[in-house]
Amino acid sequence: MAKSTFYHAGCPVCVNAEEELLGLIDKSEVDIIHLGESKNRIADAEKAGVKSVPALVTPTGNVLHINFGASLEDV
Amino acid sequence: MAKSTFYHAGCPVCVNAEEELLGLIDKSEVDIIHLGESKNRIADAEKAGVKSVPALVTPTGNVLHINFGASLEDV
Repeated sequence: MAKSTFYHAGCPVCVNAEEELLGLIDKSEVDIIHLGESKNRIADAEKAGVKSVPALVTPTGNVLHINFGASLEDV
Repeated sequence: MAKSTFYHAGCPVCVNAEEELLGLIDKSEVDIIHLGESKNRIADAEKAGVKSVPALVTPTGNVLHINFGASLEDV
């Protein structure tokens, strides 16, 4: 099975979401990409349909945008 | 470990998110609540901090609001 990809940007909201979500999903099944540190991956993320972070791109290519109890305006 | 709770309302966005997410998380670890059918659970969801659906309340009580590639205005 293809891996999922978790995109984030190191913000507290992202980190919390990451810890919560990766506590539920097998870590070996997820690639974690820090877009702030890996700016060369931003194009990949955009191509995958990522509009905001944190987001999880599933093995089937769907994008789950995750909002950790805060609107993006608050981040 | 306490279970996670996945709240949704039966909309296509919710169902897609559910299928994607529950394909990644062990189904035995998640309670699935359809708020449209179980209106008596809406108070529980609000108390847990759920602002929109679909949302996943983790075992630690954090709420991950999931936006399946569409803003809530589009749902």
